[in-house]
Amino acid sequence: MYFERVKTPGLGHNAYVLGCGEGLAVVVDPRRDVEQYLCLARENDLSIAYVLETHRQEDFELGSRALAEATGAKIVGGCHALFGDIDLKLEDGQELKVGKTRFVALATPGHTPESMSYAVYAEDSGEKCWGVFTGDALFVGDTGRTDLPDPDKTGENAGILYDSVHRKIGPLGDQTLLFPAHGAGSACGANISERDDSTLGIERETNDVFTKTRSEFVESKVALDMARPPYFEHMEEVNLLPGRPLKGPVAARMLAPKDFQRRMREGLVIDTRPPEAFAAAHIPGAYSVWLDGVPAYGGWVASKDTRVFLVAEGREAMEEAALSLARIGIDSVEGILATGIEGWRDEGLPLESIATTTPAEVAQWMEEGRVHVLDARDQYEWDEKHIPGVERRYVGHLEDDLPQWPKDSDIVVHCNVGNRSSLAASILRRNGFTRVHNMLGGITAWEKLGLPLELSDEAKKEKEK
Amino acid sequence: MYFERVKTPGLGHNAYVLGCGEGLAVVVDPRRDVEQYLCLARENDLSIAYVLETHRQEDFELGSRALAEATGAKIVGGCHALFGDIDLKLEDGQELKVGKTRFVALATPGHTPESMSYAVYAEDSGEKCWGVFTGDALFVGDTGRTDLPDPDKTGENAGILYDSVHRKIGPLGDQTLLFPAHGAGSACGANISERDDSTLGIERETNDVFTKTRSEFVESKVALDMARPPYFEHMEEVNLLPGRPLKGPVAARMLAPKDFQRRMREGLVIDTRPPEAFAAAHIPGAYSVWLDGVPAYGGWVASKDTRVFLVAEGREAMEEAALSLARIGIDSVEGILATGIEGWRDEGLPLESIATTTPAEVAQWMEEGRVHVLDARDQYEWDEKHIPGVERRYVGHLEDDLPQWPKDSDIVVHCNVGNRSSLAASILRRNGFTRVHNMLGGITAWEKLGLPLELSDEAKKEKEK
Amino acid sequence: MYFERVKTPGLGHNAYVLGCGEGLAVVVDPRRDVEQYLCLARENDLSIAYVLETHRQEDFELGSRALAEATGAKIVGGCHALFGDIDLKLEDGQELKVGKTRFVALATPGHTPESMSYAVYAEDSGEKCWGVFTGDALFVGDTGRTDLPDPDKTGENAGILYDSVHRKIGPLGDQTLLFPAHGAGSACGANISERDDSTLGIERETNDVFTKTRSEFVESKVALDMARPPYFEHMEEVNLLPGRPLKGPVAARMLAPKDFQRRMREGLVIDTRPPEAFAAAHIPGAYSVWLDGVPAYGGWVASKDTRVFLVAEGREAMEEAALSLARIGIDSVEGILATGIEGWRDEGLPLESIATTTPAEVAQWMEEGRVHVLDARDQYEWDEKHIPGVERRYVGHLEDDLPQWPKDSDIVVHCNVGNRSSLAASILRRNGFTRVHNMLGGITAWEKLGLPLELSDEAKKEKEK
Amino acid sequence: MYFERVKTPGLGHNAYVLGCGEGLAVVVDPRRDVEQYLCLARENDLSIAYVLETHRQEDFELGSRALAEATGAKIVGGCHALFGDIDLKLEDGQELKVGKTRFVALATPGHTPESMSYAVYAEDSGEKCWGVFTGDALFVGDTGRTDLPDPDKTGENAGILYDSVHRKIGPLGDQTLLFPAHGAGSACGANISERDDSTLGIERETNDVFTKTRSEFVESKVALDMARPPYFEHMEEVNLLPGRPLKGPVAARMLAPKDFQRRMREGLVIDTRPPEAFAAAHIPGAYSVWLDGVPAYGGWVASKDTRVFLVAEGREAMEEAALSLARIGIDSVEGILATGIEGWRDEGLPLESIATTTPAEVAQWMEEGRVHVLDARDQYEWDEKHIPGVERRYVGHLEDDLPQWPKDSDIVVHCNVGNRSSLAASILRRNGFTRVHNMLGGITAWEKLGLPLELSDEAKKEKEK
Repeated sequence: MYFERVKTPGLGHNAYVLGCGEGLAVVVDPRRDVEQYLCLARENDLSIAYVLETHRQEDFELGSRALAEATGAKIVGGCHALFGDIDLKLEDGQELKVGKTRFVALATPGHTPESMSYAVYAEDSGEKCWGVFTGDALFVGDTGRTDLPDPDKTGENAGILYDSVHRKIGPLGDQTLLFPAHGAGSACGANISERDDSTLGIERETNDVFTKTRSEFVESKVALDMARPPYFEHMEEVNLLPGRPLKGPVAARMLAPKDFQRRMREGLVIDTRPPEAFAAAHIPGAYSVWLDGVPAYGGWVASKDTRVFLVAEGREAMEEAALSLARIGIDSVEGILATGIEGWRDEGLPLESIATTTPAEVAQWMEEGRVHVLDARDQYEWDEKHIPGVERRYVGHLEDDLPQWPKDSDIVVHCNVGNRSSLAASILRRNGFTRVHNMLGGITAWEKLGLPLELSDEAKKEKEK
Repeated sequence: MYFERVKTPGLGHNAYVLGCGEGLAVVVDPRRDVEQYLCLARENDLSIAYVLETHRQEDFELGSRALAEATGAKIVGGCHALFGDIDLKLEDGQELKVGKTRFVALATPGHTPESMSYAVYAEDSGEKCWGVFTGDALFVGDTGRTDLPDPDKTGENAGILYDSVHRKIGPLGDQTLLFPAHGAGSACGANISERDDSTLGIERETNDVFTKTRSEFVESKVALDMARPPYFEHMEEVNLLPGRPLKGPVAARMLAPKDFQRRMREGLVIDTRPPEAFAAAHIPGAYSVWLDGVPAYGGWVASKDTRVFLVAEGREAMEEAALSLARIGIDSVEGILATGIEGWRDEGLPLESIATTTPAEVAQWMEEGRVHVLDARDQYEWDEKHIPGVERRYVGHLEDDLPQWPKDSDIVVHCNVGNRSSLAASILRRNGFTRVHNMLGGITAWEKLGLPLELSDEAKKEKEK
Repeated sequence: MYFERVKTPGLGHNAYVLGCGEGLAVVVDPRRDVEQYLCLARENDLSIAYVLETHRQEDFELGSRALAEATGAKIVGGCHALFGDIDLKLEDGQELKVGKTRFVALATPGHTPESMSYAVYAEDSGEKCWGVFTGDALFVGDTGRTDLPDPDKTGENAGILYDSVHRKIGPLGDQTLLFPAHGAGSACGANISERDDSTLGIERETNDVFTKTRSEFVESKVALDMARPPYFEHMEEVNLLPGRPLKGPVAARMLAPKDFQRRMREGLVIDTRPPEAFAAAHIPGAYSVWLDGVPAYGGWVASKDTRVFLVAEGREAMEEAALSLARIGIDSVEGILATGIEGWRDEGLPLESIATTTPAEVAQWMEEGRVHVLDARDQYEWDEKHIPGVERRYVGHLEDDLPQWPKDSDIVVHCNVGNRSSLAASILRRNGFTRVHNMLGGITAWEKLGLPLELSDEAKKEKEK
Repeated sequence: MYFERVKTPGLGHNAYVLGCGEGLAVVVDPRRDVEQYLCLARENDLSIAYVLETHRQEDFELGSRALAEATGAKIVGGCHALFGDIDLKLEDGQELKVGKTRFVALATPGHTPESMSYAVYAEDSGEKCWGVFTGDALFVGDTGRTDLPDPDKTGENAGILYDSVHRKIGPLGDQTLLFPAHGAGSACGANISERDDSTLGIERETNDVFTKTRSEFVESKVALDMARPPYFEHMEEVNLLPGRPLKGPVAARMLAPKDFQRRMREGLVIDTRPPEAFAAAHIPGAYSVWLDGVPAYGGWVASKDTRVFLVAEGREAMEEAALSLARIGIDSVEGILATGIEGWRDEGLPLESIATTTPAEVAQWMEEGRVHVLDARDQYEWDEKHIPGVERRYVGHLEDDLPQWPKDSDIVVHCNVGNRSSLAASILRRNGFTRVHNMLGGITAWEKLGLPLELSDEAKKEKEK
């Protein structure tokens, strides 16, 4: 029985390819670029018969339509209208047989009203449930955020989610393998585990939705303050189709340095090199979005109509950067710097830099009162722990809400490790701040060095363990 | 938490790479060629700190020594002498902490006296066990064979195995993920599931070791008659080291057709092309061992001292064939036909062929009494189902126990699908039988066509479902 | 200065990617699937500025339009109307400067009326010509056939070609590197060398166009009788666009065996496995076209409107087969047998076989007068050498002109080595001939064994050397 | 006729694999890691019969012994004792036939006393020479340096080289293809063309050895002042074997950050990230050697007995870096930072930085007299052009001859583009200079911006063109 989890870096997204017997397969929650699923099917002598959707994903564009066109597969979901244009709408409790494998549809609203889960009964795994595709209802160590459909109903939806998990998923039994749509790094959950493999029995011991009471759970969801990336809206729209197939291989035109310089004024430049490389030398005005951050942060910087010009190191990074934007619906990459930054540099074209610094140095500067420090992380991260005496602006909101410090003051930016703070630093630089430092290692290194932190009650408990 | 199952085709072998936190990893039951484990470690920024062995494997050569040399990792096993030259010997119940992950050693003898399992407690998976590396004690849907240490004590060892599973592994709880050393296709178990993912809760419902009583279980193990490949003995010897590192990349000398023809007389020829290609044209005297069958059947045809000459199609098959032999300790591949069979053919060098046939045709021939039919499968497969009125010789024993039919009589050979019967046909051809036919599709197609079969009681029950 | 020849297997086609300085590149005579050219450009930090076409290719679909869309490159050709919809039309002698590299356009008609060559002067190679892109005007060891525009004017066009080579290309000097559009295996030339690297100085010593007089050359071209694949007409049409970009990745739907069986009646089956595998077992009615033969012989079996169903072994072969058809304009592949022939076989679905034989055996049979022998090669190959007493039908014309032998007579088919004769054998089998044998090794092995041959005068001379 | 040039990045080295007919191939001047040659042979159905050596290479370790062991090939060279332990010693003018291809040995001393060339006559390329393997006697646009055997006899050897080229190579004819052992980027020639493809006819027009008189040529060689990397001596020793086979795959142990920190004191750290990334953050004391520079500059920093600890980004870079050192005989890589610099950073371990700057800024600083500027290039590069008023130290000699400036003065380092200056900056930083700036873009960008330069007479002429 062929089975594979296919992860999408930067989105914390899991799709699944499951061989069902008789040469048939299903794909669950595919991303927009479906070539990898097709390859796996070919390598394993499988014909993809169905695409299962757990819900209308918000954080990436679905590949359901693309897979259906490429394979003739039927698109399957629940009966709620938000599933859009699909082929087969299953009721709560309805069964679908594929090859020798049975799927039972379970309505599990809460994250979104249409959310479905699918319990899987394999040919030789007996009467009990083998595994469950839970979408964003139940993650490893967490549950989907409940503020997306309507921030004012976050608590109400949390209660609905709690009931879904307890009434529909929990009863499948401790032995059930858990296959959620997202893992660590997703914008759809705040505390998803770094561990991908789990069972309902393990979750029952460790997951808030099981260890907390209903009201504690609702309260914790209401208290959770996570930013909502602006591109989500576009995803909700195109995922009704569901998803738009890509037109040909994704990768923009290669532009020689002077062409790049001329054309880049039509839109904006995203530099995907590591923060260190960006700090030392970059094109003036460029945004710093490290490669793995493009899927999540590209959607804060650019929208579907922005003309994007990319700086990337090497062929694979060029392709990954363009593909990452396509995965969140941005098809408007107009050019890639053909020669990398090296060619730009060797032409003598203008370069800017940002200083780097370390926690130890910053701690001393703070003591001396010489710097302003900006934390670029999200509210829920700040709530967990932060450096005392610093200001916070979420990197996604920074350009619309710049700090009021003098443009020539010494500013240190930090996040967890140094990637998002590089983006924040690049935003400050674009907006006229001249003495910006990126604190490498972020709050992670700060904590390792034993420097002072303000912790939430939970974080304190965690620490004492 | 990085975690990956690495399968070895043809051996049904699973090794595991597990990231344990703090940049450290363990590898469980590695095969001899360790490059893939090293690559995964490098790709995931991990340093391999320990190699865990569940037991002295019989069916492949271990890569423990090789990994230790390449990484400085410590080799870990149990206290039994059969673990040979390892670095750290854990007692039953003893704990090993790696990074943020805890391993608890469990003595689980039965398959072999030294067999250990390792229960894993991940940082964030609570008090309960997350997963268990069971080696050959517990497979998905099966348990390890108990006849290997001493065929006369198969029943006694089955009882010991039953107790190991019930006393040590079962109590870990239904939520526990199951990570055995073998999957379907292994020579170490007769009924391993095609499904790789399971939990103790699923096994509790479906696995003989849980659904049968102790005495029923012992009886079924005693009744199980599986052949024992001759290379196992050599593996038991070298795995005390444990395992010998490979010297450089595996791939033999490429020989032009006439050199191949001249040199092949020093040893034997193994032709790894598919049975159909072999049937139509092959070098006289060659053994037919399809590519995926090389790890299991190469060890029946050749021993560590045999000079082997390979026929394979394309670079990847050439490398895979040579590597497959190295994995079972055969380093004596002397040459590969550089041009493939095409070059041999175009030189006008001698070729032989074997006829192919289909179940429908054979059924008719049998009715007409025109053919002898030979089943090349193992006893335990025959016991489950077979074609009435045919003779059986296990392919591995055939060359030492040829049928007494006239050399020019029409002979049909079959197995489950047509691969092992191709090997059997090639053996008959080598030994002077001139009218040999390989029945493509084997008993699988025979059954699909509704042709007559004799079934065991269990197979009858299965069928009625 | 980056420079790479990109070969297309099965078509004997060469495209070229040439870095010209200042981060700019040109691509010469691209095939329809342009991803590889784009990859090379990205890997070498180049922006593709121009696509150079030597002529409206007949044997494959151009990728000029596709490259232009993907990169913004300008399509460049000559002034003749047959260049179709291009961006820049160069006169004979006109110069194009790209980066630091100069191209001089040369009108070199003869193969076709619009044919152009491009002499290249690199920055640091002095006053003399560095290399020349000759399209089908001058190959290594041969020249393009002159019968394509109008078979009645083969001689006239040969004269024109002779003059083009002598007046325009020859004068560039012995030091000039030769970069033609085709190498060995192309349907555009009969005697192209297996060697890819040459210079005008080497050609001057060895190429008929230089070593023969004009009238001898014309005569040899008139005497040359090469079949003209029917798909050429479609290519001539679409290459006016020039070429149609592919829509998404090429690879058809994977069909499970029973779906394949049901659907294949809508069109035809092409089995791309090696001739030996096909001989031993194939789907009744299937055409045998070995994988590398798909680009050339797929166009004899199928046309742009035929629904094609493919049998191939492994993922790469599946993709290569579908892509090969797309390269000659056939986008109508409807399905691939998901499980390979193995799954078909294991389902007990019907199979047929073809016998194989060897030259030694055939020679004896011929002596005994027991067989009809069919040579499936082209006229010009027959003219060079053939087995005395056999009949000839070009494989491409066979289905329209079947031999008049009894359907149950023993028939041996041969070609040069055994690939095209497998196609011929499959055609005979489709048309009711029941006792067909493919002679493996073909005339190549026949000759190596010293069996009797009838040779042309030239072949005799060659042999005596 | 299969033919492929295999380049080794960073060494400007060319090896060649040439199919000779009858399934046989030769490899010319192989590097130490021979897996790629073996792969090409397997992919093209070739058996490697001979290894041809042009001379005892100084700049990389030969793979002749390794190939001989892996394939049974014979090692072929000239009769001079410096060829060491080879199988077949050809006299000047002696012929070797391989398959259908003839090689004629030509003694072409000058670069070294034993240097041989091999003229190749292909089966179908007529009486004239098809191509010539020239080793370091004749490059595209240049000739091998003549100072290596004895700096005092540079002129004498230049004369010998001139005669070799004129008497032995030139007479092969303008049509001859040129296949030298090195291309651009090699330490064996100062002015090798970026273009890889050439013929003797093109060289005759453009190469100093043909366009200059003998005495002018000798004079130019005597005037050429190129540094001699210290590892050359070791190469001259091991290439007598010739070359030592690698023991297993090259790649050192992965060390978690704290292990790396502890162990690195045993030797030295080489950081292979791009200069920009190094500038922003690196481990204190590390040498900066960009990845492609490792083969050439690793041998200046480390010797065969140095324990090396590597920092690299991603799996491929880790493997490339370790392999690059092995290619110049350094097998003593003890560890690689498993987590990359990110893991080091996130642990809060110490980091240092170097400032970056641009030509425009430096020009202004120089005007203001605020900085010391150091040119890290070689003498022969300086002779061609340099910035007026700066000091020069070749990067390879810098650590033994540090500038006498105050340790806290502002220092700018430059080279051609910024890579070698990063190494120079890291050396200054190691030695206590605290205010070091790397001028990105180097003299290349400086010149593009029209800033003042001092030029040699030849460079002036070049510019006027």
